[in-house]
Amino acid sequence: MNAGKNETLTLTPIAHIETDFEEKFGVPRQSGRVEELRGTLIFEKEYAVNEALRGIERYSHLWLLWGFSLCRRRIWSPTVRPPRLGGNRRVGVFATRSPNRPNPVGLSLVRLLSVNSGKNGPELLLGGADLVSGTPIYDIKPYLPFSDCAPDAVGGFASDFEDYGLDVEIPEELLSKLPVEKRKALWGILHEDPRPAYQHDGRTYGLSFAGYSIFFSVDRENILHVTEIREREKSKGR
Amino acid sequence: MNAGKNETLTLTPIAHIETDFEEKFGVPRQSGRVEELRGTLIFEKEYAVNEALRGIERYSHLWLLWGFSLCRRRIWSPTVRPPRLGGNRRVGVFATRSPNRPNPVGLSLVRLLSVNSGKNGPELLLGGADLVSGTPIYDIKPYLPFSDCAPDAVGGFASDFEDYGLDVEIPEELLSKLPVEKRKALWGILHEDPRPAYQHDGRTYGLSFAGYSIFFSVDRENILHVTEIREREKSKGR
Repeated sequence: MNAGKNETLTLTPIAHIETDFEEKFGVPRQSGRVEELRGTLIFEKEYAVNEALRGIERYSHLWLLWGFSLCRRRIWSPTVRPPRLGGNRRVGVFATRSPNRPNPVGLSLVRLLSVNSGKNGPELLLGGADLVSGTPIYDIKPYLPFSDCAPDAVGGFASDFEDYGLDVEIPEELLSKLPVEKRKALWGILHEDPRPAYQHDGRTYGLSFAGYSIFFSVDRENILHVTEIREREKSKGR
Repeated sequence: MNAGKNETLTLTPIAHIETDFEEKFGVPRQSGRVEELRGTLIFEKEYAVNEALRGIERYSHLWLLWGFSLCRRRIWSPTVRPPRLGGNRRVGVFATRSPNRPNPVGLSLVRLLSVNSGKNGPELLLGGADLVSGTPIYDIKPYLPFSDCAPDAVGGFASDFEDYGLDVEIPEELLSKLPVEKRKALWGILHEDPRPAYQHDGRTYGLSFAGYSIFFSVDRENILHVTEIREREKSKGR
């Protein structure tokens, strides 16, 4: 059965999400691990319709379908090397959530915290959104507990089940530079170990989060030490 | 933040699914209720690559992203009237899984039963696929138990939680016309009540399933009676 011409589908964003991640580095790779992360979903003008959200507040969780940011020449790779497996193991792309797939649409589960009125229409405050700020959103779907949760599901590789995480130490004088509501989230994303899988050495990294630059290194005992926190310059509009 | 030109995304099918549903009527509206349903996912030539599926057998469940069959003029409706709510209640489209959404991509959870070699490359045998045969598939993702299952999720309308279903009576002489492996699935889809929400009367319906035409009506006690089962003519190729 060949794909007919009329089976292509062009998606245009219905919204964008604003989060504390200006760049990909630092975004947790496994969705759902850092609950304190917050994002605001702001609708594009054509879709900023209150009626389209009627009843959504009945749902505690939502699905987001969104666009991976890729260079325009889309290449898909039959196999990829997931960072969480150490970066050395090749796995079929359809056995991963990697962006390097033929149709690069991301799927994320988020918590619906509130539906608000912004200056340009309705906005959704979301919890647990592991997305770079500005990510285009193609669809929002309610999470249907009966249909979408399979408690008997099994899957993954051995390393998926390890409780891998770094001990994180942030000196009080640095932590106090952050707004209170961002501190637990920062601890969470550092605990997840943002470093590339192939670079587990003692070098210093800089991560951008919530308008701050966070500098850290990981010692031989796998303890992450934050060495500096500096406020970043505000970007000139978005 | 306006949608830039480069945020549109064009999807082309990577595969199609073959199921026992030649048409939409009879496909269960709530995904996951009829486990006995079977579908075979067959890849488009360009994507029929064994390596792309390496490791997928480790996952018991998968997500399918697929295309709703719509007339070409795409219209989205801010509100819809979900059949399962009786067809009379308007709900925001983003609070439903209705096709009438701006970017009509469907999301379904299926069980991965086996990875097989077909004559044109790898094929996936899937369980619980509530899709019309021929539906284009845009993506396959592994179901990640930790990230995708939210056991504490709540949502929906009161009628979502009712254990609504019809008692189904199929005379033995009719049931015996069906292959054994299709009988439980037929019972399941009839139990789900395929009738339009606004048409709960005693008329006779004809449903197509697994190559058979199934005729039935529902009496005043909400018992569904199958009155005829006939083998359909084989369609001349696909």
